[in-house]
Order: sequence, then C-alpha cells, then structure tokens
Amino acid sequence: MGCIQSFRQCCDRPKNTNVRISLPAVCFVWQIAMIILFGIFIRYNEESDTHWIEHKTSNNISSNIENDFYFRYPSFQDVHVMIFVGFGFLMTFLKRYSFGAVGFNFLIAGFGLQWALLMQGWFHSLDPMDGKIKIGVESMINADFCVASCLIAYGAVLGKVSPVQLMVMTLFGVTLYAVEEYIILSLIHARDAGGSMVIHTFGAYYGLSISWMLYRPNLDQSKHRIGSVYHSDVFAMIGTLFLWMFWPSFNSAISDHGDGQHRAAINTYLSLAATVLTSIAISSLSQKTGKLDMVHIQNATLAGGVAVGTAAEFMLMPYGSLIVGFCCGIISTLGYIYITPFMEKYLKIHDTCGIHNLHAMPGVIGGIVGAITAAAASKDVYGTEGLANTFDFMGKWKDMMPTQQGGHQAAGLCVALCFGIGGGIIVGCILRLPIWGDAPDNSCFDDDIYWELPEDEENNPPTVEYNNHMRNKF
Amino acid sequence: MGCIQSFRQCCDRPKNTNVRISLPAVCFVWQIAMIILFGIFIRYNEESDTHWIEHKTSNNISSNIENDFYFRYPSFQDVHVMIFVGFGFLMTFLKRYSFGAVGFNFLIAGFGLQWALLMQGWFHSLDPMDGKIKIGVESMINADFCVASCLIAYGAVLGKVSPVQLMVMTLFGVTLYAVEEYIILSLIHARDAGGSMVIHTFGAYYGLSISWMLYRPNLDQSKHRIGSVYHSDVFAMIGTLFLWMFWPSFNSAISDHGDGQHRAAINTYLSLAATVLTSIAISSLSQKTGKLDMVHIQNATLAGGVAVGTAAEFMLMPYGSLIVGFCCGIISTLGYIYITPFMEKYLKIHDTCGIHNLHAMPGVIGGIVGAITAAAASKDVYGTEGLANTFDFMGKWKDMMPTQQGGHQAAGLCVALCFGIGGGIIVGCILRLPIWGDAPDNSCFDDDIYWELPEDEENNPPTVEYNNHMRNKF
Amino acid sequence: MGCIQSFRQCCDRPKNTNVRISLPAVCFVWQIAMIILFGIFIRYNEESDTHWIEHKTSNNISSNIENDFYFRYPSFQDVHVMIFVGFGFLMTFLKRYSFGAVGFNFLIAGFGLQWALLMQGWFHSLDPMDGKIKIGVESMINADFCVASCLIAYGAVLGKVSPVQLMVMTLFGVTLYAVEEYIILSLIHARDAGGSMVIHTFGAYYGLSISWMLYRPNLDQSKHRIGSVYHSDVFAMIGTLFLWMFWPSFNSAISDHGDGQHRAAINTYLSLAATVLTSIAISSLSQKTGKLDMVHIQNATLAGGVAVGTAAEFMLMPYGSLIVGFCCGIISTLGYIYITPFMEKYLKIHDTCGIHNLHAMPGVIGGIVGAITAAAASKDVYGTEGLANTFDFMGKWKDMMPTQQGGHQAAGLCVALCFGIGGGIIVGCILRLPIWGDAPDNSCFDDDIYWELPEDEENNPPTVEYNNHMRNKF
Repeated sequence: MGCIQSFRQCCDRPKNTNVRISLPAVCFVWQIAMIILFGIFIRYNEESDTHWIEHKTSNNISSNIENDFYFRYPSFQDVHVMIFVGFGFLMTFLKRYSFGAVGFNFLIAGFGLQWALLMQGWFHSLDPMDGKIKIGVESMINADFCVASCLIAYGAVLGKVSPVQLMVMTLFGVTLYAVEEYIILSLIHARDAGGSMVIHTFGAYYGLSISWMLYRPNLDQSKHRIGSVYHSDVFAMIGTLFLWMFWPSFNSAISDHGDGQHRAAINTYLSLAATVLTSIAISSLSQKTGKLDMVHIQNATLAGGVAVGTAAEFMLMPYGSLIVGFCCGIISTLGYIYITPFMEKYLKIHDTCGIHNLHAMPGVIGGIVGAITAAAASKDVYGTEGLANTFDFMGKWKDMMPTQQGGHQAAGLCVALCFGIGGGIIVGCILRLPIWGDAPDNSCFDDDIYWELPEDEENNPPTVEYNNHMRNKF
Repeated sequence: MGCIQSFRQCCDRPKNTNVRISLPAVCFVWQIAMIILFGIFIRYNEESDTHWIEHKTSNNISSNIENDFYFRYPSFQDVHVMIFVGFGFLMTFLKRYSFGAVGFNFLIAGFGLQWALLMQGWFHSLDPMDGKIKIGVESMINADFCVASCLIAYGAVLGKVSPVQLMVMTLFGVTLYAVEEYIILSLIHARDAGGSMVIHTFGAYYGLSISWMLYRPNLDQSKHRIGSVYHSDVFAMIGTLFLWMFWPSFNSAISDHGDGQHRAAINTYLSLAATVLTSIAISSLSQKTGKLDMVHIQNATLAGGVAVGTAAEFMLMPYGSLIVGFCCGIISTLGYIYITPFMEKYLKIHDTCGIHNLHAMPGVIGGIVGAITAAAASKDVYGTEGLANTFDFMGKWKDMMPTQQGGHQAAGLCVALCFGIGGGIIVGCILRLPIWGDAPDNSCFDDDIYWELPEDEENNPPTVEYNNHMRNKF
Repeated sequence: MGCIQSFRQCCDRPKNTNVRISLPAVCFVWQIAMIILFGIFIRYNEESDTHWIEHKTSNNISSNIENDFYFRYPSFQDVHVMIFVGFGFLMTFLKRYSFGAVGFNFLIAGFGLQWALLMQGWFHSLDPMDGKIKIGVESMINADFCVASCLIAYGAVLGKVSPVQLMVMTLFGVTLYAVEEYIILSLIHARDAGGSMVIHTFGAYYGLSISWMLYRPNLDQSKHRIGSVYHSDVFAMIGTLFLWMFWPSFNSAISDHGDGQHRAAINTYLSLAATVLTSIAISSLSQKTGKLDMVHIQNATLAGGVAVGTAAEFMLMPYGSLIVGFCCGIISTLGYIYITPFMEKYLKIHDTCGIHNLHAMPGVIGGIVGAITAAAASKDVYGTEGLANTFDFMGKWKDMMPTQQGGHQAAGLCVALCFGIGGGIIVGCILRLPIWGDAPDNSCFDDDIYWELPEDEENNPPTVEYNNHMRNKF
C-alpha cells in the first residue's frame, strides 16, 4: 500500500486538460491500425458472403429465412440501442456532464466494437483454413457485448477522466474481456448467455479497480456538480427505460435458436418486472416521508436483468426469475443507500454511477444463481436432448454432469472477478500517469473542460465573474 | 347522486401524503404473492421449454425459425417500448410532474404485467392436463396489452392520485380486463386484434369513471401546475412518436401469422398518417392566427391507431384506413378543444391527459368500424379460406355468417363499455377512502409530494422569496 | 442571374405568417385527394391479402414465415424510427425551434409517405392485370425512404419556411424522387440499396437549391436564435443516436433476402464506427484547446452511413467499409468548419443543419464508391451465381459486365444530381411567391410564429420587463 501511495504522489502533478494533440492522435492512429488489421484478418462469414447462395444449396438449406441474420438481427438492434442510447443516456443525470456522458460513450463504443471484433475473432472465430476471422450478425452482437463491459467501467469514473484515458481504458478492457471470455466460455465451458459474469462482473470490477487507483482525495471541490437537475433526471430515464425494455433481447441475443432465445427473453422480462417493485419499495422505505429517489429508479430497477443473465437460458422457471429480481431490487437499492457512501469513505473508491450496486453485486449474484441452477439441472426437467442442448454437452464435454457444470460455472465467476480486479489495478496504474489530460479536482463533472458549450445563461454563464458569483451561492 | 355526494363528503378528510408504510407494504406483499402464484401456476409453454426439440420432431416442424418467438418477438419489443417509453413519456408534458409520469408508469406496468400473466392465463391458457398456465411470447404481448389499458386509465387521473391508489387501480383494472377480454373474445367471439374495444374503450372509460368518482371541486388551487414548459413538451413528443411509430406493431402483434400481421401493419400505418394531417389542420383552424397547439400534436395524431385497431386485420382496404384516420384526427382534436372543458365543467370529470379524446371516442369508433367491416365481409373479397381464417370461423363457430359476426362485434363493444364504466365507478369508490395517501387539492401535479427533487433553482423553488431572489440575479 | 434577382425582389413583399386558412386547406384537400387516389389505385399485394393462404398453396410456400413481412418488418420499424425520431430530434438542436423541428417533420413525413406510395406505385408496382398498385411491407419501406429525401431537404431550410411551404416542397420532392428513382434503378439499372444517390444526393441538393432560391440577405436579424442551449443539444443527440444505430437497418432494409441484407448491415455498422473516431479527431483538432463541438458529434458521425449506402450490399469488404467511414468522418467535419460558412458567405446558400456536409458530399462519395466497387466486381470474389444475384444481372441485363455496371452507377449519380439541383431551383422559385406565410427575416428560427408556446419564463423571455410582466400573471 505504501508503494501504491508513493506512486500516487508521483503522479499527482498539475493537470493540463488540453487534449488537442493526444485525442486526435489516438483516434487517427488507432483507427488506421483497425483498417490495416481488418484488411489482414476480417472477412464475411458464409452467411453474409455472396457465396451464401451456393452454401445454401450445398447444405440443403431450403430458404433464406434460415440465415442467422433473421434469427438474431432484431435482437442485435435492441442490444445496439442499449449500448448507445441506454448506457449513454443513463449517465446524463449529472447536471453539467450530459455531453460527456453521451458523447464519450459514443466515442468509446465506436472504437471498442472494432477492436472487439478483432480480439474476439482471434480467440473464437479464426478460420483455420485461411487464417481469417469470419464475421456475421453474431459477431456484431458479441462486439456490442464486449463494449458493454467497458461502458459499465466508464460509469465508475464518469466525470473524472479524459477521453484519452477512456480510449486507453477501452483498449485494455476489450483485450482483457476477450481473454477472460475465452477462458470462461471455451476453456472452462461455463455458460453465460446474458453475461452476468463475463460482462457485468468483469466490467464492474474493472471499473471499480480503476476508480480506486485514480482516487482523488480532494474531489469534494467538485461536489456541487455531483447531482442532477430536474430535466437531466428525465433524460437519464430515457437510458433506464431503453436498457430495461431491451434487456430481454440482451440476454437472449446469442442464446440457442428456438427455445433458448424464447426462454431467455421470458426469464429476463419477469425478473426485471419484480425488480421494479422491490426497488421502489426500498427507495420509499429509506426516506423519512416515503419519498422516492430518482437514483434508485434509474438504476436499481435494472439489477434483475443483470442477475438473471447467466441462468436466463436455463430452466430457471418463471417464479425463479421473479425471486432473483425480487432479491436484486432490494440488494441494489440498499447498495445505493449504504454501500456506495461506505466505499467512498472507507475504501477510497468513488463510484459515480453506482456500478457496484447495478452491475457488480447483481453480476456476482447472477453467477451464483447460474451455478446453482446448472448444478440442479436434471433430465426430468430438461429432457435428455434438452439437457445436452441447453448446456452444450457435446463433443469433448458430452459426458459432463450438471453438478460438474455447476462447478465450472463457479470457476467462471472467479475468473471474471480476477480479471476485473487485476486488470483494473494494472490499467489504473497506467491511467495515473500525468499525461492523459484529465481534469483537476475542482473541475470534475464539468462539460466545460472538453466541450464547446452553448452560451445559455442557465448552464453556461457567459462571464467568469458571474460564474464565480453563482458558485458562492452553492 | 345524493348518496354519492354524501359518500364523497365522508371521504374528504385531511390528506396525509406519507406513503412510507403503505407503498412498500403494497409492493412487497403483492410481489411475494406473485412469486407464490407463479410458483403454483406458471410454466413455460412448449415453444419456450427445453422439450421444444422433441416437440419439433413430433410435430414435423422443420426449423427453429417456426418457433412463435420469431413471428412475434420484434412486435413484442415494439409494444414493450410503447408501454414504457410511449405511455411514460407522453405524460411527461406537465411542468412539474415528469418524475411521476414516467416513474409511476414504470411501477404500475411492472406490477400489472405479472398480474396480467396470471389473470389472462387462468382464462385463456390454463392447460387442462396439469392445471398450469403455459406462457410464451404471445402471453407477454397480451400482458403488455392488458397493462396498456391501466396506463390509459392513469392518463385521466395523472397528478391527482398517489402511487398506492395507482397500484389498487391496476390490480382491479387487470382483473376486470381479463374478464371482459374473456367474454368479448372467447364467449362472444368478437375479433379485436388491436384492442379498440378491449383495451382502449375499456381502459378509457375505466379511467374516466374513476376520475369522476375522485372529482376534486377545488382543483383550481393546483391550476398553475396544469401546463407544460418548453422542454417538457419536447419530452412528451418522445412518447408521442414512439407510440405513433410502433402502433403498426401494436395492432399486428397478435394477429394471424402471415397475411394477418402484414395487413394489420399496413392498415395502421396508413390510418395514422392520415390522422396527422387532419389533427394539424383542426389545430391550426382552432386558433385565431392559425398557430398549432402542442397538446393536439402530442395526442390527437395517435387517434387513428386506436380507431383502426379492431378492423386492422380485416380487409379494410388502404383507402378505408385513410378514411378512419381522417375522421379520427378531426374528432379527437375537436374533443380537446370542446369536449374536455365541457366534461370538466358540466360532468365533473377532470381528464388530465384527455384520454376521452385519444382513447375513448376513437376506441368506440374503432369498435363500430370493426362491426361494419365484419358485417360487410364477403367470400368475393376474402376468398373462402381467407374468410374462415380471418374471422376464425372454425370449430363451434364454423357456420357463422359475416353479418352475425358484425352483431357479435357490436355486442363486444357494449361489454367493454359496461366493464369500463361499471368497474371504474366501483374502483373509484374504493379509491375515495382517505387511506391512500393522495395529495391535497393544492398540491396536485407536483412531484415534490412523492419524490426527492434535485435542488435546481429553476424547477424547484422552495419558496417565492427564494424564487424572486434568484430572479433578480438574471 | 439578373432575372433571378429581379424575381427575388418582386417576391420580397411584407410577410404575413397567418396560416390559419392555407395550412388547414392544404391538409384537408390533399388528404381527401389521397383518399380518392388510394380508393382508385391502391390494394394489398398477395402477401398482405387474405388470399395469401391460397397463394401459399399455389406457389409451394411451406410456411407463413416465408412471407416478406418477416424478412423486412423489423428493418421497416427501424427505418420508421429514423424518419420520425431520428430526423425529427436531430433538428431540435436550435434553442427556440424544437417544436417546429419535430412537429413539422411529423407533418411532412405523414403526408409524404402517402403520396410516395402512390408515386412510387405508379412507376414500380402497377399491376398490368388490373391497373392497381399492390402494396406490402417493401412499399412502406420505400415510402419512408422517399420521405427521407424530403426531410433531408427540410434540414437546409429549417426555421426559415412555413409549414405550407414545407408541404409544397414535399409534394414536389416526392414526385421528383419517384421519377429519378425510376430512371436510376429501372432504366439505368444502377443499384442503390441504401440510397446514397437516390435519397441523399438528390435530397440534399434539392434542399440546398431551394435554400439558395430562398436566400435571405438579412437573416442576421435572427442570428441570435441560430444556436443551441444545453438541453436542446442533448435532445438532438437522441436524433443522432437513433439515426446512427438504425442505419444498418436503413441500408439493408430493401437489399436481397439472405446474404444481401446481412452484408449491408455489417458494412454499415463498420463504416459508422470508423466515422465516429475521425469526426471526433477533427472536431478536437479544429479548436484551440482541443474541445469538441456538439455540432460535429451530432452530424458528422453519421456521414459514414450515407457514404456506404450504395455499396453496402456489394462485397465492399469490412476494411473497405472502415476506409469509407474514415474518410467521410474527416470530410464531413471539415465541411462544417470550412464549407458551410463559405457557402453562406459566397454562394448565398444558408444551410441550417449542414446537410451539405452530412448528406450531399457523403452521398456523392457514396455514389462514387458504389461505381468503383461495382466496376471492380469479379466472379472470383462474388462467385458466378453471387455476381448475377448481387447486381441483378438477369432478364434483359443478363449479359452485363461489372465494368459496364460501374458506368451505369456513375450515370445514376449524375441523374440524382441533376434532379436535385434542377428540381430544387424550380421549386425554390415557386416557394418565393409571397403567399406561403413564411416568417420575416427577424423572426426566423422562432417557434412563436407557428406554435402556441407554454408560458415559461426560462425559455421565452425576450426581455426582463416581459419576464416580470409574465411573473405577475401567475
């Protein structure tokens, strides 16, 4: 810890927030690298290539509707909305950081999805015949999933980092994600349709660890900007609702054709409904006069979607989904009330959006629920074919038992935790270097640092005098 | 009437808006009840169960794409957006009630859909073999439909009731809906793909009757808050547009596979387009200088979707859809100009969102259009198979004639009206009890009663003094 | 030019913005005309007619899922969102013209799609057997596409024209569109899946030419209203993001079933991702301290979707898509910085939304990319069947070579340019007549002209006196 402290001090030089060289340089160089790597590695797969017409004949596929595009594209678009509008607008709640929320979300998702196609391609869909990565609609969904983990991490550091830091964070985040996903899904053979472990647990602990490494002891200089105004809370509800509504698509997007997708959507739909009621109940209980807190409605209502991710395609049963949602609404809301302040005060982890309550805890719960549900699976409930199908007990895994699978699920959760925390600490160290253009402690959560703001008196007082004047009032 | 008046006086005790016990209690107890009932009754149907793989083989289904999920899931997601973003944001137009609009909409939809799955399941999809309700994607759509009727009713009482009252209203609303739906669709054998009768007529009269029972003679104490500000009107347009755009999915979501869904989408698309033009025309005509009124654009433009609901899957013909939309745009806009003030002044029905113009009148028109279109159906136009298919003249109804069907449609409309008005009066009586925590007459339409508001000078001035003080600064 | 100048002077009479007669008249008369024409001409096609069940049998179609509805309806809904929410909200960025942006967008789209169904039907889908136009889901997509070109044109004149002028502009715009589309796609046999030429190039030059004809030398009287406020920029991001996210659906909506739609979606997804990075890079470079400009993020990030439109269904290759996006992000952002001010100052073309940078230049680039990609096509890459399939080398075009196709593509681009510029000049002349109710130069970009505005002090206080005055009223 002493070592970390001294490293911290070494990094605490005066801040220069001018990103005019670094941001364009990073964008251009990395984008050109993407073009070169895509030129070398990435091609269409057999379902998106013009040879599909021949592939159809040779594989006895009777109709174009059998193209995977028609199974997954509607879900892909829902996931896409979650990534860009859902995560983007969810973070607009801060009174003076809406541009940064939605704009930087846009930037890192735009870069992240390209890098994810490459990283995931190398691990999952490299064609051994020609050494190329073959992409289709499922690759796009997986790339969006991978980006989601980085956007979750962004939630922890919202308002406290520069766009260059976010790009670096995304570069490493996507890389780590692809490795841990490969280990969890392919090597350990855990199942994780909705990514409770792979996306949420990893992403949240990655972000929290970075936030811990970037801890700012003097952040209360920007305290007056950590809060919402009336309309920014309504904007944030756009994000909340699109995440909430499309979460069934998220959890079912890459599950098995047919009953797998169908069941994952139903389970998620039910779990989320239960979460709404318990979040609102705890929110009301927590205030003297029973008033509701928008922060809970915006965030805790989503916890059920996270927690049902791993088990969504299993036979969790409708009441099982409701129980998961019921518990997570309570835990997540209590997290906002008790754990977030505790973490900031005692653990030196400042978590702007409360991702610990929305993604970390529900993600871990989701992993555990998945392990238990898998271990409890039986041929009575699933049917012989159904069991093999749902858990993919085929090839080298064909003799696997459900109880074993439960163990593998638990192992997967541990891997996600390790990658999240370990990766976050390392990347956090890199991000402490005083070269990234992040804001000083008294200018956090302020769009004025990285954005040309319109000159409206309310949000952007035209003169410094006026501005200082106003400041004294708060 | 005298009896009602004295009941009213008996209920008019001083108000206590503290819902810290009642709201959490209702949420927890009802959610636990849902879990228990789901545990006893609800299971996956054969298309969302792991036994689908065996079901496929035994029913000669060649491909997973034949799973109902792929026919209906994109429509389900559109309907889902209408319920949560559409209805939620449509009601954000009030200057100080946006949190309540979108937040309570979220709460009652989250509860309502669970209760709807049970209620509708008992009436429609109870498996006689094992006494279980089997759910799939169509059940989720139907649950969302059922919730829609309660959200319509919420529009009439927006800003005047407590969240606990809304939960009670939803509990009874869903129950009544399931019964009237069973009578109309199963017993009477009326067709109602888009729910003009079942959803809109019922929901609107249910809400209006409740609003009549809850009439507040001194509501003008809150008059200054019944209005919009510039940005709240733009937020409301988000709701309007998502409702408008996805209405073709609403009306086609549960109609027949193939041509049924296709035709319902086309008819709705056309009807809504015509409504936009006539709403704007009447809105402009109604003002001295031809200026448009946002209230009309936000609401009346949707009337065509309501009115084409019942007949959407019939051979209404493209020009028929346009005529329906044309008329409803006129009637709905005139309703906002003349009928809403009339109802408030003379009938003692205060209708915050004008659901009488948007849902009640167009819903009744939709029922009538459906009856006429059904009665006019012929084998020439529909084809022999097409006629039987569209009107479901099968089983015990196989000898039914289109003219008879027209009569049944009309009977269905009457049932919806009776359930709406009768149910609303009874539930309204219950909601008058002085135990539900609703706001006093001078604090209606104010988020401050049920929400922790952010402290921004603009929207939340605690006192007039403070307000003037701030004003001097600008 | 002298002639044009004198025509201009002749038209510059004092303005009367009262549209109480003209707007309702136009709406009613045109809507009634639509009903009559629909009655004469428009019927359901075989996939949306009740005879589908017989059609299925006679064409050996095994399942309802083969109905075109299931191939295209999800894409249709995405396109629909782009038209109404995407274009509508993208234009809400002006501080006092959000109602006009989203409301008039709604009006002209509602009218335009009806007229487009007729115009496109006469040219493309008139059934020679009975002289009727047969419509289905593809017709709806095409109608939405046609409307898109008029909405693009609206972007150039936003805030400077009356709703009546917009209706006239849409009437002629749709007509011209249908003709140029017929020439380009049917006569010249160019391919244009995403409409780089047919939609974007035509629409943008149509709008720019109209804006040139309607040039207001004294527009700086309204200069203080050409700008955004903080929240209006966030509203505009809703438009940006829904356009950005759903653009893959736009470009793939009417391409070939199977690999065609699949590939178009992938190419667009990649191109747009690259555009985000280069737009942000140039935006940051262009400011002294590296701050980002919301105008660039809102608009230039979309250029990649425009430019990849024509070639989206070709074998552009993933890296090719990235290159297209890379270049367009740069060009479009530079356009906002240098070309828009230049055009206003020297060419007398005021372009409110910068459609020259977002649609015109990328559209032309898209046409050129399409021509090159087509000319470079080979059987090696596409396969024999794939080549014929992708470029529709069938019937009378069965002996066509890819190089020839490249020439046809280039010819198509020229046609789009000619129709856009020529049509725009003629329609612009008509719109200069002093009968349309447009605003005087000092009242442009002001919702107060055509809308009843809510009385909120914040957004509508011209002076402090007025403000105090208003306050006394409450």
